[in-house]
Amino acid sequence: MGVQDSGSSADNEYPDGSVRLRNPHIQLMDQDILYHLALGSESHDLVSMFGDVKFVCLGGTPKRMEQFAFSIMDEIGHKLPAGTTLLDISRYSYRYSMYKVGPVLAISHGMGIPSVGILLHEVIKLMYHARVRDPIFFRIGTCGGIGIEGGTVVISEDAVDGLLRPTLELPVLGKLLQRPAKLDKKLARELKSLASAEDPYDTVTGRTMCTYDFYEGQGRLDGAFCDYTEADKMHYMTQIHKAGVVNIEMESLSFAALTHHAGIKAAVVCVTLMDRLKNDQVLAPKEVLDEWQSRPQILVSRYIKRYLSMKGRLSLDGPGGSMCVKSPRRFKLVQQESETYD
Amino acid sequence: MGVQDSGSSADNEYPDGSVRLRNPHIQLMDQDILYHLALGSESHDLVSMFGDVKFVCLGGTPKRMEQFAFSIMDEIGHKLPAGTTLLDISRYSYRYSMYKVGPVLAISHGMGIPSVGILLHEVIKLMYHARVRDPIFFRIGTCGGIGIEGGTVVISEDAVDGLLRPTLELPVLGKLLQRPAKLDKKLARELKSLASAEDPYDTVTGRTMCTYDFYEGQGRLDGAFCDYTEADKMHYMTQIHKAGVVNIEMESLSFAALTHHAGIKAAVVCVTLMDRLKNDQVLAPKEVLDEWQSRPQILVSRYIKRYLSMKGRLSLDGPGGSMCVKSPRRFKLVQQESETYD
Repeated sequence: MGVQDSGSSADNEYPDGSVRLRNPHIQLMDQDILYHLALGSESHDLVSMFGDVKFVCLGGTPKRMEQFAFSIMDEIGHKLPAGTTLLDISRYSYRYSMYKVGPVLAISHGMGIPSVGILLHEVIKLMYHARVRDPIFFRIGTCGGIGIEGGTVVISEDAVDGLLRPTLELPVLGKLLQRPAKLDKKLARELKSLASAEDPYDTVTGRTMCTYDFYEGQGRLDGAFCDYTEADKMHYMTQIHKAGVVNIEMESLSFAALTHHAGIKAAVVCVTLMDRLKNDQVLAPKEVLDEWQSRPQILVSRYIKRYLSMKGRLSLDGPGGSMCVKSPRRFKLVQQESETYD
Repeated sequence: MGVQDSGSSADNEYPDGSVRLRNPHIQLMDQDILYHLALGSESHDLVSMFGDVKFVCLGGTPKRMEQFAFSIMDEIGHKLPAGTTLLDISRYSYRYSMYKVGPVLAISHGMGIPSVGILLHEVIKLMYHARVRDPIFFRIGTCGGIGIEGGTVVISEDAVDGLLRPTLELPVLGKLLQRPAKLDKKLARELKSLASAEDPYDTVTGRTMCTYDFYEGQGRLDGAFCDYTEADKMHYMTQIHKAGVVNIEMESLSFAALTHHAGIKAAVVCVTLMDRLKNDQVLAPKEVLDEWQSRPQILVSRYIKRYLSMKGRLSLDGPGGSMCVKSPRRFKLVQQESETYD
């Protein structure tokens, strides 16, 4: 099979903007079980659960996405009813964690193309079943940088594989299928424009290399095996740097190819954990890494806030959360008093 | 680069049987951080923590591997000191979960070749740093069966990719590296011999296909995209069945290739969740699936018990766990009485 392109986005969407499922079999099924999300099209009322979703944010670990869910709740002023908190919607799958904060879904995708690919198939089907219109997908992640300092935010312009090919290649029924790994250029520019001159770090755009392995697949010298020299590695790093690659990670190729094929606008925003021209291991202390990992979240939060604010959907009456705090000082006092009761 | 074979196992081990690291750079490093395991060669005393490991058991989810850890503890009669329980050793990585029960390590590997590959690089390095001799690795997982009933246990004879090639192909420094995906045939036979005629399910051996995707990559009709017909799918399934493929999963290729390259004996034991000649979705109820998922664990437990028993390392004084129960009836009474106290 040759390279399949999905053509203009008009082909991929129904006239009302809802996500088009490029699979005629789904409509003939009695029920569609989204096995790895612990959801089903007939067991759950997916329209009422997810019909209001606008943004789908994916990131590596359950913990990071839970933190993101709570932070975006504050940012957009989303309020939960008293006596409630966020719950991992996919907790019975033991595969991915999914949190919903009003129009924002935050889901962990694990590591690597197969893991993010399974998730994307099921989330795209979820958007279809929930009749979501024009959703925007973000991957918020970490990566190695090439020629840029650790802590730099990279917005991907496009994604290439380990052989610099801008396509996701996948054996399907014994033949190699290729799908272009395209990201939305306008969305990338809009994100770039939201980087602030006051940010104590750089935000850059560039080409992202996506690999199937973290060690040999990314030319690291510190895996269990290594058949090349440091000079070989540096030669290769310089070569791909010249080809426009500014960072390397493990999910963008599938993320770009599957969202593009579904006609969904998508962007990849990652923070670099080290400069691969200098070293291979992650050496920054935990607190520094934690702060770095919040940087892509901050940029995506700005985009979501701006969007909701333009649509008049932003709650402007203070921070969200399930508690309604009238006086932070008295709130704290009540908490402290309660704790001292036996 | 052509297909690399690691030759006889004598090449891969030091004379004392400890795991050989095929990477000259590691010894020159100040510290080797096993980033995704939250362990380091100089921060942790890896010899005293892991030097007694003999079996490394990998499986998909943290929950399944925690359950396996507690069940193998009972099986081998391993006792924890009073007032202690198992702790996830890699909990600070938020990537994988790792439990240690005497000579057994139980670690979750996530989904797909990249995820299990990162883990294997770091676990092989862990074996090296801990000076473990002749460890045996098992993957305990789930899969789709071809022409066999759901609930059947499959011991892999070898692993092939989606194009039926018995090699793991990986771009390394811009060139395709290929490693043979070989499993230990003797170990597979030994495992097969431990299947009991009394088991209420079949245990078979055969070829395992390993794919990079769960939906299109495995010829499913229920992904977000599907460009082929049911007839195309059935034609392909019949074709690979004729080529000896009895099950399809997503990790065996990397598991076989990396353990073989490191000279480590390894086996893949999976339970089928459905017969792909009949359907694509997982339809069995949760309780049935839970029981099915214990079947590969039971087979591997029998192997471990037999090995330890032959070495005189099996505790034969009753079930393990951190509590020493003298009378189960009185034990239960004490628990109940305690609970009713205010």
